[in-house]
Amino acid sequence: MTETASRPTLEAVAARAGVSRATVSRVVNGGDGVREPLVARVRRAVEELGYVPNQAARSLVTKRHDAVAVVIAEPETRVFADPFFALQLRGISKELTAHDCQLVLLLTEGRDDHARVGRYLAGGHVDGALVFSLHLDDPLPGLIRGAGVPTVFGGRPGWGDGTRDAAPAVYVDCDNRGGARAAVRHLVGLGRTRVAHLTGPLDQTSAVDRLDGFRDVMVDADPRLVVQGDFTPAGGERAMRELLERCPDVDAVFAANDLSASGALRVLREQGRRVPEDVALIGFDDMLPVAEQTDPPLTTVRQDIEEMGRLMARLLLSGLDRRGEAAGPAGTPAGVVLPTTLVRRASA
Amino acid sequence: MTETASRPTLEAVAARAGVSRATVSRVVNGGDGVREPLVARVRRAVEELGYVPNQAARSLVTKRHDAVAVVIAEPETRVFADPFFALQLRGISKELTAHDCQLVLLLTEGRDDHARVGRYLAGGHVDGALVFSLHLDDPLPGLIRGAGVPTVFGGRPGWGDGTRDAAPAVYVDCDNRGGARAAVRHLVGLGRTRVAHLTGPLDQTSAVDRLDGFRDVMVDADPRLVVQGDFTPAGGERAMRELLERCPDVDAVFAANDLSASGALRVLREQGRRVPEDVALIGFDDMLPVAEQTDPPLTTVRQDIEEMGRLMARLLLSGLDRRGEAAGPAGTPAGVVLPTTLVRRASA
Repeated sequence: MTETASRPTLEAVAARAGVSRATVSRVVNGGDGVREPLVARVRRAVEELGYVPNQAARSLVTKRHDAVAVVIAEPETRVFADPFFALQLRGISKELTAHDCQLVLLLTEGRDDHARVGRYLAGGHVDGALVFSLHLDDPLPGLIRGAGVPTVFGGRPGWGDGTRDAAPAVYVDCDNRGGARAAVRHLVGLGRTRVAHLTGPLDQTSAVDRLDGFRDVMVDADPRLVVQGDFTPAGGERAMRELLERCPDVDAVFAANDLSASGALRVLREQGRRVPEDVALIGFDDMLPVAEQTDPPLTTVRQDIEEMGRLMARLLLSGLDRRGEAAGPAGTPAGVVLPTTLVRRASA
Repeated sequence: MTETASRPTLEAVAARAGVSRATVSRVVNGGDGVREPLVARVRRAVEELGYVPNQAARSLVTKRHDAVAVVIAEPETRVFADPFFALQLRGISKELTAHDCQLVLLLTEGRDDHARVGRYLAGGHVDGALVFSLHLDDPLPGLIRGAGVPTVFGGRPGWGDGTRDAAPAVYVDCDNRGGARAAVRHLVGLGRTRVAHLTGPLDQTSAVDRLDGFRDVMVDADPRLVVQGDFTPAGGERAMRELLERCPDVDAVFAANDLSASGALRVLREQGRRVPEDVALIGFDDMLPVAEQTDPPLTTVRQDIEEMGRLMARLLLSGLDRRGEAAGPAGTPAGVVLPTTLVRRASA
């Protein structure tokens, strides 16, 4: 696209307005420190010549901003409280930095702000988006489709049945269901018979998949042995208290993640239940240092969270690189599912 | 600026290219799912008409993106490990959200990436920037001036002597020096005579100001009683170990922040020094839950970190609102310094 040479330059604007290049640049970038008559003169020249400032012109031609947005569909308070996100961002940051690509984290107070996130994504500020922690009824996936930016999801999106989206979403996930099965099988192998599950928030596919894995093994489980949590330590405490009231004879617990397991552990100790002697406990994530610093340290299902972040970024960047090619993004796999491993420590 | 009506529309591009509005929109937003001959045809029409996509056109006219960048001049690993940043971001996020303004956090791996941050800021993606944790030899302030975006700094910038910058920088800070004086006076008031200071990183003005406050009170202090730390728990441990080797007779410690105080506390316990009986200890920040959960809980100098973030955002937004007015940003105060208060707990 060599036609860019015909695009009006900063110099042309400066000449038309009868001011210096520096003055044009200051006005275009906000007008600070330039007297009002000059500002008006420069703006008139900008309008008359149809001048487009550098970045917009460049991005119009190259379609590249060298920036990728990260959207975490949680309030900023949770983004900073849950080390899961910090780890995923670490992987993303390393990969983007290696490609001299700016990580643009869009923070929100809550779901009400997702329309604004959609506007920013649609506004031509980034080349693509990495989106995670989606909830089933979240408007974000629709807004992202509307924004038309290439996107890779962290965790399998919930609309993967083909009814809401023609093209399959590209995502990176871990084997939540298989990992859960391994955890529950381990508890059964210890001879435990009253095995419970503290779930994550069931509007997220990762929590649903882990519950499915639990049910794969505990086919005829007493429904009272499944209590809903929310992936937070406080949620784990609440769920564990409820579980002990419902089923005082519980002898094993699979918590949907390590943070909720750490909450459950506090309640078990408070109520005088020894872990693992009275109640065996397994978490999910192998979130360090949490999983190692609990007393006793947590047996858990390991997923490589940082690597998942890195892989999300890599998939997005390679998709962007391929966009000019005839093949298009057809070669991109719809979902990449990483394996999990059971890590044995003292709690089960 | 009513001349915007003459700017070529999406419809005009669609008519010229002989395609639908939706196709133009898809091409302009990246070209996904549009066949190559159509992409080329649309791009030609875009070039010929000098069409500027919505956001760029809008921002050229209104100069507003309804987005503010936050830049923390630390590697992303520290951004997520130090609760100071989470608190400041909470205040910023609340204020920006109340103005339906998107918080755009620009993360980096380190100082080598600051040129890229400067490019993003200059690229017309945000209305302004909130910048904190500057270090003295950081190229970021210069890059930000070059980018020409309105900026409010968190913490007094180090070049405030007027030699590097014509216009005074707008910043929000707490009374670091006064707070440090209050802490050290409290230790002296307890009858302590060998009062030490574990500093922060001395390429940051907050650390320098707290050291100055210490020296205001301990005018003739033994220089061995001042040991450099870095605002992290590990830095506090290292500095405390060094201090105990140099001055085993130390009977009071003012640590430059609560995180380094928590590290110092671990070393004091490990070496059998009772706090506060043998060594009185004071931190800075009143960072919760850290300051309350140490054993003993920390006496500390409180600053309202979340409020500082909120105030930074408010100053930036009000400056942006005033930019059209004749008065300009002249009414903006150069620096806002918030008071600190001594919070007494058990450690001193």
